[in-house]
Amino acid sequence: MTGFKHERHKSPTPLKQPRELVLACPPFRSQVNLSRIVRAAGCCGVQHIVCAGNGKVKSKIARDGAEAVEIDVHRSLEPQLKKLKQTGYALVGLEQTSGSVSLFEFPFTRKTVLVLGNERLGISENVLALLDATVEIPVYGLPHSHNVATATAMALYEYCRQFPDG
Amino acid sequence: MTGFKHERHKSPTPLKQPRELVLACPPFRSQVNLSRIVRAAGCCGVQHIVCAGNGKVKSKIARDGAEAVEIDVHRSLEPQLKKLKQTGYALVGLEQTSGSVSLFEFPFTRKTVLVLGNERLGISENVLALLDATVEIPVYGLPHSHNVATATAMALYEYCRQFPDG
Repeated sequence: MTGFKHERHKSPTPLKQPRELVLACPPFRSQVNLSRIVRAAGCCGVQHIVCAGNGKVKSKIARDGAEAVEIDVHRSLEPQLKKLKQTGYALVGLEQTSGSVSLFEFPFTRKTVLVLGNERLGISENVLALLDATVEIPVYGLPHSHNVATATAMALYEYCRQFPDG
Repeated sequence: MTGFKHERHKSPTPLKQPRELVLACPPFRSQVNLSRIVRAAGCCGVQHIVCAGNGKVKSKIARDGAEAVEIDVHRSLEPQLKKLKQTGYALVGLEQTSGSVSLFEFPFTRKTVLVLGNERLGISENVLALLDATVEIPVYGLPHSHNVATATAMALYEYCRQFPDG
């Protein structure tokens, strides 16, 4: 008898300083993906998402993440990314590229914008050209590519693992 | 100009030995969650899912994961978990419990069954009593709980990080 007792919905882990991770989302094909990302971001203590496209979130999926996370909707990501870069953020794309580093081995800096790509098209060429780094998640089997919200969850997890206190 | 070039849908990373990670799924409320888990498992090289409930997978969501991963459907998980334990698998529940360890600090053993819980109810008491360990994902903000498929993605990622070659 191991005696594990449920403690579901524990109090959240306090952060010693606010998360300085920002997510940048392109126009997604699916509102569901954006909504799942908002929920995961909220759970990770992320406070800010920059978004192109309509930015509509399904609150049934995002839950209270939809209120906890500030979602700034813009016509295009590039000007926002340039501004964030000027204020000291590293721009890190989640994308398989000629220069991508395994997420297993990537040391994040605290002030990071995690830049996501569209489900079909990935990160646009214009945005790719602005990035400081790209990270990829090793894939071992079929279907050979993660859903974008799943991949984002993994990257959020890795960032939080590196900065468990904020 | 950083010069990152798209290399989407790269060839998968070869495993030096087959993944000895098994997923155990309770009857979920949502086929979508099971299907998302199957896709993520396939990408991680997982070959085997033990499942209670109807085990129906939406191939539009799971993609080729639905063919790549063997999904064994049973009326109840307990007998299967006992069998796996007898053949040397550690049973690790993804659940907040009185004895759960942060996923950030949990050393997996290769032969592991990652046991998941229902969206609302978590891991049943009968299954909890069989587990060797429980792991939890630190949560920092609202909505204070991850979706089950999102949490599973994070745990799959952590396992693969610890065993990048299988």
